[in-house]
Amino acid sequence: MLRAGVDLGGTKIQVAVVDAEGTVIGQCRIATPQDHGPPGVIDAMVQSVRDAMSDAKADMGSLLGVGVGAPGQIDHDAGTVSHAGNLPDWLNTVAVAGPMRTALGVPVELANDVQVGVMAESQLGAGRPYSSILGVFCGTGVGGGIVINDDLWLGRGAAGEVGHMVVEPDGAPCPCGRRGCLEAYAGRAAMEAEARRRVEHGKKTRLFDIMEKKERTRLSSAVWAKALDKGDHMAEDLINRAVWALGLACASAINLLDVEAVVIGGGLGCRLGAPFAGRIRDAMLPHLILQEKAPEVLSAALGDLGGATGAALRVEPTVPPPGEIGVIVDRND
Amino acid sequence: MLRAGVDLGGTKIQVAVVDAEGTVIGQCRIATPQDHGPPGVIDAMVQSVRDAMSDAKADMGSLLGVGVGAPGQIDHDAGTVSHAGNLPDWLNTVAVAGPMRTALGVPVELANDVQVGVMAESQLGAGRPYSSILGVFCGTGVGGGIVINDDLWLGRGAAGEVGHMVVEPDGAPCPCGRRGCLEAYAGRAAMEAEARRRVEHGKKTRLFDIMEKKERTRLSSAVWAKALDKGDHMAEDLINRAVWALGLACASAINLLDVEAVVIGGGLGCRLGAPFAGRIRDAMLPHLILQEKAPEVLSAALGDLGGATGAALRVEPTVPPPGEIGVIVDRND
Repeated sequence: MLRAGVDLGGTKIQVAVVDAEGTVIGQCRIATPQDHGPPGVIDAMVQSVRDAMSDAKADMGSLLGVGVGAPGQIDHDAGTVSHAGNLPDWLNTVAVAGPMRTALGVPVELANDVQVGVMAESQLGAGRPYSSILGVFCGTGVGGGIVINDDLWLGRGAAGEVGHMVVEPDGAPCPCGRRGCLEAYAGRAAMEAEARRRVEHGKKTRLFDIMEKKERTRLSSAVWAKALDKGDHMAEDLINRAVWALGLACASAINLLDVEAVVIGGGLGCRLGAPFAGRIRDAMLPHLILQEKAPEVLSAALGDLGGATGAALRVEPTVPPPGEIGVIVDRND
Repeated sequence: MLRAGVDLGGTKIQVAVVDAEGTVIGQCRIATPQDHGPPGVIDAMVQSVRDAMSDAKADMGSLLGVGVGAPGQIDHDAGTVSHAGNLPDWLNTVAVAGPMRTALGVPVELANDVQVGVMAESQLGAGRPYSSILGVFCGTGVGGGIVINDDLWLGRGAAGEVGHMVVEPDGAPCPCGRRGCLEAYAGRAAMEAEARRRVEHGKKTRLFDIMEKKERTRLSSAVWAKALDKGDHMAEDLINRAVWALGLACASAINLLDVEAVVIGGGLGCRLGAPFAGRIRDAMLPHLILQEKAPEVLSAALGDLGGATGAALRVEPTVPPPGEIGVIVDRND
């Protein structure tokens, strides 16, 4: 039996279909529809699951269930996603699991997008040799997840917010409204805001020229990588600042948790790769209470597919009793 | 069957004898001998266990085992304590479990002093209603422990070093040799060093007068409490600074771990009690990502006996097979 995972992001919907071993045997990637609100996004996710099953050359009848990794606040039991500011018209609470289950005829599990990505790295990626890891995912924001005894530690539901560990009291402004959080230095949104402030103050950079050449409206991870390649001083300085903050926060987290490894992922983390992880390790070392037992700092191994793969792993690999599925629709439509 | 716990500190040895329910039924407290090195300390622990059993009106034959909570680095399997700078002549590795087992004829379990204290608070004290807590113990230094699913999370052996989370980059000097750690603001040793620096710079305080009147050579928790009672400005300022740092570090830890409660213990934490815990909660709130789900911040409930009680709980409440005990001595000597 197959499981499908959906990584729901503000710019793209990525689906992976995995077999019993967690190997990806089919996938689909489309732009997140911006014009039809939450119903348009849900329809697109349903169609993408079907397309990924086609890509896997599998019949819909062999689909055991779908996991969805989503941003915002997840209510797993209610099957809803709330306050997902990066998704179109998604500031309120939207029922996601119910409509998808109705359309696909299989159970749908919701989970936090970063946490499924961390779990995928733990089970199948860079964290595989370890039973305890800290995942730090740098994208638009900075999210994270803690794996302890091979299991995600969720706390009261919100554990893993490494992006809002305070690295500098009264420091840089964070998109969360506070100051000095890790995300204020290492999240793309905050880094772009700082770059724009510096340009307003007359500082020079090629970041925005590169952005325009790539026909983007935001400083994407590819824009940052390109600017670094070209030796842009502002880009270098802002990445140095991100590395400094990541090193501090990771050191505090390791002194507290003493996990075996830190996995650096997310769009920016994956794009900058192993050298970035290595620099974070160097920045972390001076603040570790046990420097001789420094944990590994690794770049995420599953890349863009990690979120969708991790979402698929949320589906229990057992056949659910038929009564648990609210509506059985024609799976061959 | 009874279990004994020893809280081994630089100034005192506290022993508790507990019954099957963990209720303390006998105790003994003596000053840590300073003049005969590790052998003198081990002899004193052995005699204190005997005295506490007498206090419990119990025969030594009913003693199931002894737990020892010690500072420094613990090697549980080897039964050794290393680098315990607060203990006399204890900078190297000292065998503790073996000699005590030989003298007492029962198994001896070693553990970290703060962690047994946190576990006692979790099982029998302020943390009892919760399955996940963060313990923050402010004494000479700042130690801690994480309880997850009712069990101590040890990481690779060194988890819980909340005192070395960084609260201010390049901040105040910490006894660990780094800068800006929580302990640099909220540990008594660092607070005293800062008070002495301020006095050298001509600042006034009654802290050292109070210390001399109490015939102490260090600013003990009682000295700090007395100075606060008398409205000493420097004491107030340094305690405010400790509260600020504890609030920041606890907020970062909660954003990461999302445990149900924070328990503030240790000599200084217990002495300043619930009002201190309440102030730490207020200082923590502005930095929490989910302010509406702020965890409880509680003062440790077991006080001075927490460490010894927690050490006793380290002994498995089952009769060990006789072969596991290396040497059986006359228990009635």
